[in-house]
Amino acid sequence: MITLKIKTATAAFLASTMAIAVPAMAQHADSHATTIAAYAPITQAEVEAAQIAWGNALVAIATEYDTNGIEAATDLAGQVLDSAYAYGMGPVLFKPTLTLAPNTFRTTREGALAYFVGGNSAYPDTGFALKGWREVEIDNAGIVITGNTAISMGNVTLTDSSGNVTVVDKTWGYVRDGQGNLRIVLHHSSLPYTE
Amino acid sequence: MITLKIKTATAAFLASTMAIAVPAMAQHADSHATTIAAYAPITQAEVEAAQIAWGNALVAIATEYDTNGIEAATDLAGQVLDSAYAYGMGPVLFKPTLTLAPNTFRTTREGALAYFVGGNSAYPDTGFALKGWREVEIDNAGIVITGNTAISMGNVTLTDSSGNVTVVDKTWGYVRDGQGNLRIVLHHSSLPYTE
Amino acid sequence: MITLKIKTATAAFLASTMAIAVPAMAQHADSHATTIAAYAPITQAEVEAAQIAWGNALVAIATEYDTNGIEAATDLAGQVLDSAYAYGMGPVLFKPTLTLAPNTFRTTREGALAYFVGGNSAYPDTGFALKGWREVEIDNAGIVITGNTAISMGNVTLTDSSGNVTVVDKTWGYVRDGQGNLRIVLHHSSLPYTE
Amino acid sequence: MITLKIKTATAAFLASTMAIAVPAMAQHADSHATTIAAYAPITQAEVEAAQIAWGNALVAIATEYDTNGIEAATDLAGQVLDSAYAYGMGPVLFKPTLTLAPNTFRTTREGALAYFVGGNSAYPDTGFALKGWREVEIDNAGIVITGNTAISMGNVTLTDSSGNVTVVDKTWGYVRDGQGNLRIVLHHSSLPYTE
Repeated sequence: MITLKIKTATAAFLASTMAIAVPAMAQHADSHATTIAAYAPITQAEVEAAQIAWGNALVAIATEYDTNGIEAATDLAGQVLDSAYAYGMGPVLFKPTLTLAPNTFRTTREGALAYFVGGNSAYPDTGFALKGWREVEIDNAGIVITGNTAISMGNVTLTDSSGNVTVVDKTWGYVRDGQGNLRIVLHHSSLPYTE
Repeated sequence: MITLKIKTATAAFLASTMAIAVPAMAQHADSHATTIAAYAPITQAEVEAAQIAWGNALVAIATEYDTNGIEAATDLAGQVLDSAYAYGMGPVLFKPTLTLAPNTFRTTREGALAYFVGGNSAYPDTGFALKGWREVEIDNAGIVITGNTAISMGNVTLTDSSGNVTVVDKTWGYVRDGQGNLRIVLHHSSLPYTE
Repeated sequence: MITLKIKTATAAFLASTMAIAVPAMAQHADSHATTIAAYAPITQAEVEAAQIAWGNALVAIATEYDTNGIEAATDLAGQVLDSAYAYGMGPVLFKPTLTLAPNTFRTTREGALAYFVGGNSAYPDTGFALKGWREVEIDNAGIVITGNTAISMGNVTLTDSSGNVTVVDKTWGYVRDGQGNLRIVLHHSSLPYTE
Repeated sequence: MITLKIKTATAAFLASTMAIAVPAMAQHADSHATTIAAYAPITQAEVEAAQIAWGNALVAIATEYDTNGIEAATDLAGQVLDSAYAYGMGPVLFKPTLTLAPNTFRTTREGALAYFVGGNSAYPDTGFALKGWREVEIDNAGIVITGNTAISMGNVTLTDSSGNVTVVDKTWGYVRDGQGNLRIVLHHSSLPYTE
């Protein structure tokens, strides 16, 4: 068999000539911001970065509440929902840790905001994100990348300002938005079963 | 503007001539079985059919146990895992309803089988599928189709042979296998939070 | 076997209660425009609508050139590229009908614009979209939907203002952008082989 | 801000404990063969390997024909179609280099086999793969990975046993089958335009 040449096999060629979108990095014509195409596969590193961002956001909301009060915390929680969740793309499958029927599932942004900071008479919530959280540890049992979506499952350990620890069983599902950012389209959180 | 002709817009043309794969239905050259391509988008009807199949399988295992004993139930549970879950494709993110740390997550087939029918000294399980289930009701809060994968969230209500009712909060994630069948790659089940 | 109830099987329930994203239709919080999520499966109807839009755009550019001149046609061609192609998301794999080496492939917006309307000294093009096109007929050999992407192949027949007819073999590949609109990420056009 | 711990961020933890499917590598319960899940994102390396395999297969069929005759070449071509193309999954969008209307597009396996080795009275083909090909060079203009599908475009240069060179403009689209192997679902090949 005669040797097959494939120019793409040489790194030099790939780097200098070929247009690659793996994942696609593009300069938007209008904004000059570097983004990732919505079709690009999700990487494990992106999932972990999104998890870290979620943990940081929860601590930030709790700290904002303790420092600047409910209005500032509510503003911040709204910003977190708008940047980290996919409510702008359609329903989000969200089962928070401490919800009760008939308000178990929070498929709308309003329901999610009520869960995190309370203050909505349509929901009985007192505000999960206001409980003094200061540290978040994420221990993944597994991450599965399914094309340009991804899911993760594991334990999340929350520590509050008094040192009290809460462990939850956590599932997240991620999709890309128009800027290529990961957004949470699925969030199932539950307290561990006890006998 | 001159009218644009598009032959594909006429149903007659579409039906008679064009090769369509929406979703792709194919005759396998080797098996002559009609299948759906792994790349085909998942439909809501397929998700609901997979949910019904899961409920029927749980009732079938419980009934098999009560009628024919543990060996027959274990055989059936193994068949269910091999046909309805994606353990043959990689890890499955499975958090069953009643598991305890450090065996909370069952990413392997062995761990899942132990949960459903017990009998594995490496796991403390007594067999969730052996608890006399006779009826399953599924009430979806939402289904989201993400290309050729899908997720669902809602309540599942289980009734046993004595009429006792158990409600769980349930998330499922689905992928297609090589025959186009939906398989569960994600399963998070939890008892509702109680104050 | 006891009958399995599945509430989602009743149309009334689905219509009134469940959050469905099949495909996801959402109100954007900021714009109030109804869009489709980037993750939603592509439908055959969307592919055909995108093909019709491409044909209409080609006729529109040609007519604009004949009516209002090269500047107006160039502006319109730029708008078409920005709305119908995926150059804003990364490279586009574009092999136009009449290009010559070493400018065969036009993976950048600049190269595509030069092909359609000429006027770029870096490319030898005289402007394919300026050739008096008045009618476009699209005859698909096949459409394949692959999750939230899609491809089509077939003949496109172009008729100019003098009644001259050009037939090309055409492949298009589509992805969704952040607003859910289909964009051309792949376009291979070639004159039929002749002996 | 208190430091966020994320156990998955430590390589040791990832390697020892977590179930990862990026892409999913699995032991099939029935065959013990290591495969990749159909849902796993496609990598650039896989696209290039599939391109090399296509080039090797074309040279192998041509060499088989010159050495062992048409029957052996036809057998080999059939094997190549069954292993490298997606005809077993649905229609394949295939526009070969040298086909004429009304047989331009070969969406079925039969039409593809006729193109490569001839011998089918329903098609006018004399057998493209029988033309003495001895060397294949692939020069990609671009590769775009779209989740668990991928497309490539570029030039393919074919050299026959007499040293004659043929250059074609080539587009390939790839999907995964049930074993995770890439298969060609799209193939548009055309001779370069000449003035």
